[in-house]
Amino acid sequence: MSIERIRLKTLQDKVITAEQAAAFIQDGMVVGSSGFTKAGDSKVVLPAFAERAKKEGVKITLMTGASLGHDTDGKLAEAGALSKRMPFQVDRILRNKINAGEVLFIDQHLSESAELLHNKNLPPVDIAILEVAYIDRDGSIVPTTSVGNSVTFAALAKQVILEINTAVPEEVYGIHDIYQAENYPHRNVIPIVAPWNKIGRKTIPLDPEKVIGIVFTNITDSPADIAAPDKKTTSIAKHILEFFENEVKLGHLTDRLLPIQAGIGKVANAVLMGFKDSNFYDLTMFSEVLQDSTFDLIDSGKLSFASASSITVSEDCYHRVFDNLQRYRDKFVLRPQNISNTPGLIRRLGIIAINTAIEFDIYGNVNSTHVSGTKIMNGIGGSGDFARNAYLSIFVTQAASKENAISHVLPMVSHVDHTEHDVDILVTDIGLADLRGLAPRERAQQIINNCVHPDYRAELQSYFDRACERGGHTPHLLEEAFSWHLRLAESGTMKK
Amino acid sequence: MSIERIRLKTLQDKVITAEQAAAFIQDGMVVGSSGFTKAGDSKVVLPAFAERAKKEGVKITLMTGASLGHDTDGKLAEAGALSKRMPFQVDRILRNKINAGEVLFIDQHLSESAELLHNKNLPPVDIAILEVAYIDRDGSIVPTTSVGNSVTFAALAKQVILEINTAVPEEVYGIHDIYQAENYPHRNVIPIVAPWNKIGRKTIPLDPEKVIGIVFTNITDSPADIAAPDKKTTSIAKHILEFFENEVKLGHLTDRLLPIQAGIGKVANAVLMGFKDSNFYDLTMFSEVLQDSTFDLIDSGKLSFASASSITVSEDCYHRVFDNLQRYRDKFVLRPQNISNTPGLIRRLGIIAINTAIEFDIYGNVNSTHVSGTKIMNGIGGSGDFARNAYLSIFVTQAASKENAISHVLPMVSHVDHTEHDVDILVTDIGLADLRGLAPRERAQQIINNCVHPDYRAELQSYFDRACERGGHTPHLLEEAFSWHLRLAESGTMKK
Repeated sequence: MSIERIRLKTLQDKVITAEQAAAFIQDGMVVGSSGFTKAGDSKVVLPAFAERAKKEGVKITLMTGASLGHDTDGKLAEAGALSKRMPFQVDRILRNKINAGEVLFIDQHLSESAELLHNKNLPPVDIAILEVAYIDRDGSIVPTTSVGNSVTFAALAKQVILEINTAVPEEVYGIHDIYQAENYPHRNVIPIVAPWNKIGRKTIPLDPEKVIGIVFTNITDSPADIAAPDKKTTSIAKHILEFFENEVKLGHLTDRLLPIQAGIGKVANAVLMGFKDSNFYDLTMFSEVLQDSTFDLIDSGKLSFASASSITVSEDCYHRVFDNLQRYRDKFVLRPQNISNTPGLIRRLGIIAINTAIEFDIYGNVNSTHVSGTKIMNGIGGSGDFARNAYLSIFVTQAASKENAISHVLPMVSHVDHTEHDVDILVTDIGLADLRGLAPRERAQQIINNCVHPDYRAELQSYFDRACERGGHTPHLLEEAFSWHLRLAESGTMKK
Repeated sequence: MSIERIRLKTLQDKVITAEQAAAFIQDGMVVGSSGFTKAGDSKVVLPAFAERAKKEGVKITLMTGASLGHDTDGKLAEAGALSKRMPFQVDRILRNKINAGEVLFIDQHLSESAELLHNKNLPPVDIAILEVAYIDRDGSIVPTTSVGNSVTFAALAKQVILEINTAVPEEVYGIHDIYQAENYPHRNVIPIVAPWNKIGRKTIPLDPEKVIGIVFTNITDSPADIAAPDKKTTSIAKHILEFFENEVKLGHLTDRLLPIQAGIGKVANAVLMGFKDSNFYDLTMFSEVLQDSTFDLIDSGKLSFASASSITVSEDCYHRVFDNLQRYRDKFVLRPQNISNTPGLIRRLGIIAINTAIEFDIYGNVNSTHVSGTKIMNGIGGSGDFARNAYLSIFVTQAASKENAISHVLPMVSHVDHTEHDVDILVTDIGLADLRGLAPRERAQQIINNCVHPDYRAELQSYFDRACERGGHTPHLLEEAFSWHLRLAESGTMKK
């Protein structure tokens, strides 16, 4: 315990144990917790509540920034502690409970959860649980490795529990840009015109009267699992980089490009790493999560600034950044997710958005969330915020998987998260389809020619040709549209 | 001819006939034309080009603001003059050609076409054809009943043909707010914080050197067909008004509500007319099209200001407005559609968006464009710009039609334009489903309980129940998902 991290002395007598804090949480409450892609989540209070739930059968609605670490979402789900969960998750156990109908999940655009709370379009938050580096002298709080929805939870929750994480250095003060837009009808302009603009405070305002308990922890975030680039991700990255190089040649972009958003995962990491040995320079990011590749690019001098809502990195990279904050301090900023992901800024800045699809179809509709139209994987996250409003919206996936038993390019997607209106470029390890300025029938032929795995090309062409014979702006054979998914379910392969 | 409408004297010798103007348009050119929902379109040059196309077989790519009048889109389509058309249309003949694959159509979010041109994500515009009230002394132009994409076409087209429409009074000067955001990466804030803010010029900048011809016309816009409210639209409007009243009671909204966007058509008109006898006051609109009901509400003192990109009204209303401009001058403004529909402003202002669906499904996904997944009706228009970013996103449709042979509430929509993430409230003549804060399985039950026609309720419930048995976050039976559409195609009814 480092009592000096409670700089507002009147709060120093609020220190309790995780179990005592968890006891404040009542059955049926709405809890808002810090945490965005594992970063800055509740390390002990929510796990302690999971233990209590096991014994007492209590359940809560849990809202967060995005996914929590496995020790949090997984333990809560396993304990049956969740009745409803929003707006994002990535945990295996929680996912199974959601798909079994045991936990109700609301899959939200990450820019919107805070809006919905402020607008009273969601039930009010009873208790907020917020991880902080320290409490400032005025009672305001310094978040840790993410900002997420914590500004909104701090403002709106009736009661607040703080987790002071001493594993995070107090020097994180200043890496956050805390801004809250006004409520309707009095909202003003959000005055960001470049990724590096800082427009807010360094700490999150908090009424000290609301603090019902402070718990000390010393636990780092669950580290990101960085999968090494493989043949497919390297190939996808190569297609994208060649596309960028060509856009520069055509005079559409300069070799600074425009601010980049990259979804989580190994494809995004592979694309960003590809910039290292390229001619691009003075790159910037305006994204939601900063991964290892961001800091590698900063170190290599290619990336001059990165804006996001969280840092989710490997253990090595975590120490590189947080043990050397002075080196990175003017190179990145963490914002609330209703700023990092807000549609107006994404359009104003002209973002190049790169996100991952589970599957896409011949017209460019993208499924990023549901396996065979029913079972959720993770959630839409911020992909919709970015794809809809981007200067360029790029989606990537492997052409086929499971020894090619599954094609990820299909006659019709089994669930739509991003419509053809919001998708400019599709990339698989096979190739890239540039859909700009193309009508549906032209899009289909581009996608069949460039993206589908050769094992499936003839059948996809046949579907499209036969659909065209029947006519329509977007030709389909409704009786066959899901036949590939159905074949997979019946025989274990989409192949005939 | 009223030569004094060419106030820049050096342009007065550019007057030519429509046929001479049409002769400038070469086969394969990209033409950008004024016109948004019939308002302010080319009255004679495009029709003259259609005549030429009939004889010479020439074809163009035609971009507009939105739909043109029937004398324009219909004649062009009939003449085979269009190879590609974007971003919206409503014409019967054109629609048939699109669905037959004879005209390629790109269905775009209306806020995006201008962006795509500025970003060079679409081929450059060769010739712009712009209807104007007059040419100002500096060569800048005063648009007529719509602004649409004319600011962008004027800026980017290599050559410009102007149609001076003397049926439009010169007093329209001042009803437009002409603003063009900077290109990337130098875009600034668009400084609108309320519907009545005017931030731009009164005329559209135009380099007089680009003007290759000026044609005089004296033809009013095709009038809007205003269908009288019927039992169904009245019922839908009643549900929506009751919902608003309840939101006020709950303290979520004040009786000023928030700025309203309403799609075109009789439902929107019925809802707006419903406000006339309500307790709401000082209402505002931030929409894309102003219809008769807007001016009726202004006259009744209920609506204090309306912002849009066009005025599309009946002949009676047209005269009421344009013969009495002084009365309405401070009550409305027409903007470029990349301002009226821009995502950032829609979120900043907190819009209540009311749009029409063709069909929706049990999870709240909306199809606004395609009949049975293949044949396009009109296009997505601005519905996506508004629905995604609105404070409240409401979609309406009739529960059933064609003597109830068609249900508009379905197991799965055959085409997705708006995903469940973007839909808060669904309304049919049967009732209203409030989906806020609900997970997919809860949404389904609300929709089945409140929106579906009684003739289809049991079967829809059965589909949902059987899908739930199989599990999943969004339970579906893929082999049955389109069975209602297929039954309709086979037997003329969705009923078993």
